[in-house]
Amino acid sequence: MNRYLLELSFDGSQYHGWQVQPNGITVQQTVQTALVRFFGCEASVTGCSRTDSGVHARQFFCHTDTKTSLPPEGIRKGLNCLLPPDIRVLSCRRVDPSFHARYQTRWKMYEYEIDTAEVLSPFRYRYAYHYAGPLDVERMNVFCASVIGTHDFAGFSSSGRSTKDTVRHVYNCCVLRREGGLTFRICADGFLYNMVRILAGTAKDFGTGRFATEEAASIVASVDRRKAGETLPGQGLYLSRVSYEEYDNAKL
Amino acid sequence: MNRYLLELSFDGSQYHGWQVQPNGITVQQTVQTALVRFFGCEASVTGCSRTDSGVHARQFFCHTDTKTSLPPEGIRKGLNCLLPPDIRVLSCRRVDPSFHARYQTRWKMYEYEIDTAEVLSPFRYRYAYHYAGPLDVERMNVFCASVIGTHDFAGFSSSGRSTKDTVRHVYNCCVLRREGGLTFRICADGFLYNMVRILAGTAKDFGTGRFATEEAASIVASVDRRKAGETLPGQGLYLSRVSYEEYDNAKL
Repeated sequence: MNRYLLELSFDGSQYHGWQVQPNGITVQQTVQTALVRFFGCEASVTGCSRTDSGVHARQFFCHTDTKTSLPPEGIRKGLNCLLPPDIRVLSCRRVDPSFHARYQTRWKMYEYEIDTAEVLSPFRYRYAYHYAGPLDVERMNVFCASVIGTHDFAGFSSSGRSTKDTVRHVYNCCVLRREGGLTFRICADGFLYNMVRILAGTAKDFGTGRFATEEAASIVASVDRRKAGETLPGQGLYLSRVSYEEYDNAKL
Repeated sequence: MNRYLLELSFDGSQYHGWQVQPNGITVQQTVQTALVRFFGCEASVTGCSRTDSGVHARQFFCHTDTKTSLPPEGIRKGLNCLLPPDIRVLSCRRVDPSFHARYQTRWKMYEYEIDTAEVLSPFRYRYAYHYAGPLDVERMNVFCASVIGTHDFAGFSSSGRSTKDTVRHVYNCCVLRREGGLTFRICADGFLYNMVRILAGTAKDFGTGRFATEEAASIVASVDRRKAGETLPGQGLYLSRVSYEEYDNAKL
């Protein structure tokens, strides 16, 4: 068996998230269908993450096993001919059969886009959350700073989570201004269910003044979902970068 | 009767162009449906231009007549609640009943986006034409310069046109570099059917070297469709700005 690591990027607007499910078309199902057509036999892919409905990926990795031995560049080009234009294979490389796209991630970076224009551009509604009021980026960054480090993030997670270990290490968290809005960016060794969307919603509440900056540390320390902000919708969320221990992104 | 001028912006991906037609949902039909719901009586809109299927508008104007006399800002907000998110009303103002959104345009600016990335981003396929090879912007601009001025543009028009007068005045035409590609921009007092898409396709052929820069003036002077380049697809085209004699855009 040969294992290949595929680097994808996808617009999640039309998909019910990454993972195969009975109701609705998913990115994983679409990639598997393309692989079956390409290899001419059964094929499955294992992704680095389970993205939700409408969530996008600027970078996403998955691995697949096949008996065939083809040049990676041929697999990349062939799959791009078979996939719809909202899913692209950016690169393909052969990896050791022990390599795992999900378990060997070192860190992942998510970004949440908030558009603050008075009227949301018709070109942005699939790609950002709209909040027309003013947001104080400095206040939002006070909260972001309190998120950095090792914390129990159960208070920033929806009840649908399956994991018991809710402690994660956040390497970096910040809010960046950009034209027409801002980007909430977080880099961590792992994420709980809806964690980024709840953290972004809480950061937004610091930006509006609903939460005072003095409350930041206590909200994080409370581990209480009721103390945090709302879960923002999926269309503003992007998996932006994934780093592996074995394969540095620069080499992929 | 009161006449209102609506400034729109729309993502044309999901529409069969502006104008009402029997098969397929159009932007005009969608705006009219929202107006009927808003005013509670029959309503129609007259647009500044007929955009094709998949074509976008950063700025688009249409006028509508109504017996009701409502504050323009209320109409703007009300329509935005009733319209789908891919059509937005940017502004609304009351105009003289003699004002006509189509006949009184002074000039219109169209832009055609060409993406030159090796792999087209999944976020760009609805919003740009993809050409992965290198394009020489200087050569393209030699052609653009030859387009400026008063010319018979019948050679840059598809046979479906209904007008007999094919002379237009081009105020400006240029190609601009931008991240990941380039923008073909043209500003004229009017446009023939498919004129921008054929001019952009011809400019592309100067960029690839298919046409030599010495041929630019003679291709324009030939008034021969067979001498020009291909018609590029609709998804790269944007109506970007519309100027009226009576109402300066800055005031709208």
